[in-house]
Amino acid sequence: MGTPSRGGVPTCRDEYVDDLAMLVGGSVWSCAFSPNGTLLATAGNDLVIRLWDPGTGRLHGTLAAHTRRVWSVAFSPDSSMLASAGDDGTVRLWTSRTRNTRSCAPP
Amino acid sequence: MGTPSRGGVPTCRDEYVDDLAMLVGGSVWSCAFSPNGTLLATAGNDLVIRLWDPGTGRLHGTLAAHTRRVWSVAFSPDSSMLASAGDDGTVRLWTSRTRNTRSCAPP
Amino acid sequence: MGTPSRGGVPTCRDEYVDDLAMLVGGSVWSCAFSPNGTLLATAGNDLVIRLWDPGTGRLHGTLAAHTRRVWSVAFSPDSSMLASAGDDGTVRLWTSRTRNTRSCAPP
Amino acid sequence: MGTPSRGGVPTCRDEYVDDLAMLVGGSVWSCAFSPNGTLLATAGNDLVIRLWDPGTGRLHGTLAAHTRRVWSVAFSPDSSMLASAGDDGTVRLWTSRTRNTRSCAPP
Repeated sequence: MGTPSRGGVPTCRDEYVDDLAMLVGGSVWSCAFSPNGTLLATAGNDLVIRLWDPGTGRLHGTLAAHTRRVWSVAFSPDSSMLASAGDDGTVRLWTSRTRNTRSCAPP
Repeated sequence: MGTPSRGGVPTCRDEYVDDLAMLVGGSVWSCAFSPNGTLLATAGNDLVIRLWDPGTGRLHGTLAAHTRRVWSVAFSPDSSMLASAGDDGTVRLWTSRTRNTRSCAPP
Repeated sequence: MGTPSRGGVPTCRDEYVDDLAMLVGGSVWSCAFSPNGTLLATAGNDLVIRLWDPGTGRLHGTLAAHTRRVWSVAFSPDSSMLASAGDDGTVRLWTSRTRNTRSCAPP
Repeated sequence: MGTPSRGGVPTCRDEYVDDLAMLVGGSVWSCAFSPNGTLLATAGNDLVIRLWDPGTGRLHGTLAAHTRRVWSVAFSPDSSMLASAGDDGTVRLWTSRTRNTRSCAPP
């Protein structure tokens, strides 16, 4: 079991691998997993909140309402709601219509 | 079950809908749900911490004491306390008088 | 049970009251409760991490090592460790000597 | 059991001691413990996410893919994934190959 050097710092083989990269429009200031683990929410300069399936990196949906950049997103403890806020002077609450069940059919 | 395109990105029907928008005074830097899920706290440039009922979007109360913008709010694990801090050189602790029971009668 | 207006917005009687204000030196960027609820950690421009007893607002201790402002503090899930980081190019780990038991005698 | 003064503020003997200092390249904006407590993730201006063993302060691995500074890191609730995001317009998901078991042999 080798331990190759990288940049002079001895490291283990990376425990976290298989990078999925999802493109968004501009800087992202906040990312949060839902407590039930089914979604990842991200938000930033491009005004929309994106909801991702963390298992596949697939875009699950977008929430568009803010008119200025979004600094903060947070899920409620039961994952049924998402709050978002930023520079536009509103706090927005988004509610899960299906309350944590998947409603997306694969393409 | 259709999967309409939006902006060229195939998406599911949004799982999170029914946006509630609550007006505050200026940029919001921090939002946090209480661990018991009964309240959402927000704070930012207008100096006050607002407490919202996340189910209805109704304003539950305001905490006014900071004299400069507030960067951070956090609930204690049992939801009985809220800490806030920012640019005015104080850290403030707010304690639930009724310890998590609702004390507001509907108007 | 009255519901007085405040600034034109109908509100409930504040559920969170009894504000404790603790003085620190300058802007605070981060505050976090330990998962076991016994401590509140704050940090910011004055370089030290302060640990507070959230029940009384009393200063429990200070952790001084950073040489530039601190942006982030976080407790480990079992509350035994605190991580801090900011502009000085170090990440610091602080370990509870008494592992969550109170070691402070009242003055 | 004495309570020595420090800077005029009466304090307890520090409950958190034994500072471990780990060097990184520049400002750190975000640090987060994995929910299972086995890792600490940090990220900031030098583009890489570092994973540390919080018990020893040892570098467990580095995740290099971002091309601009990283503002936010977050673990999934089961600790199997890490999300990172910042200025480069991507959100990255890193998955634990060994799903929470240690794969590093001591050097």
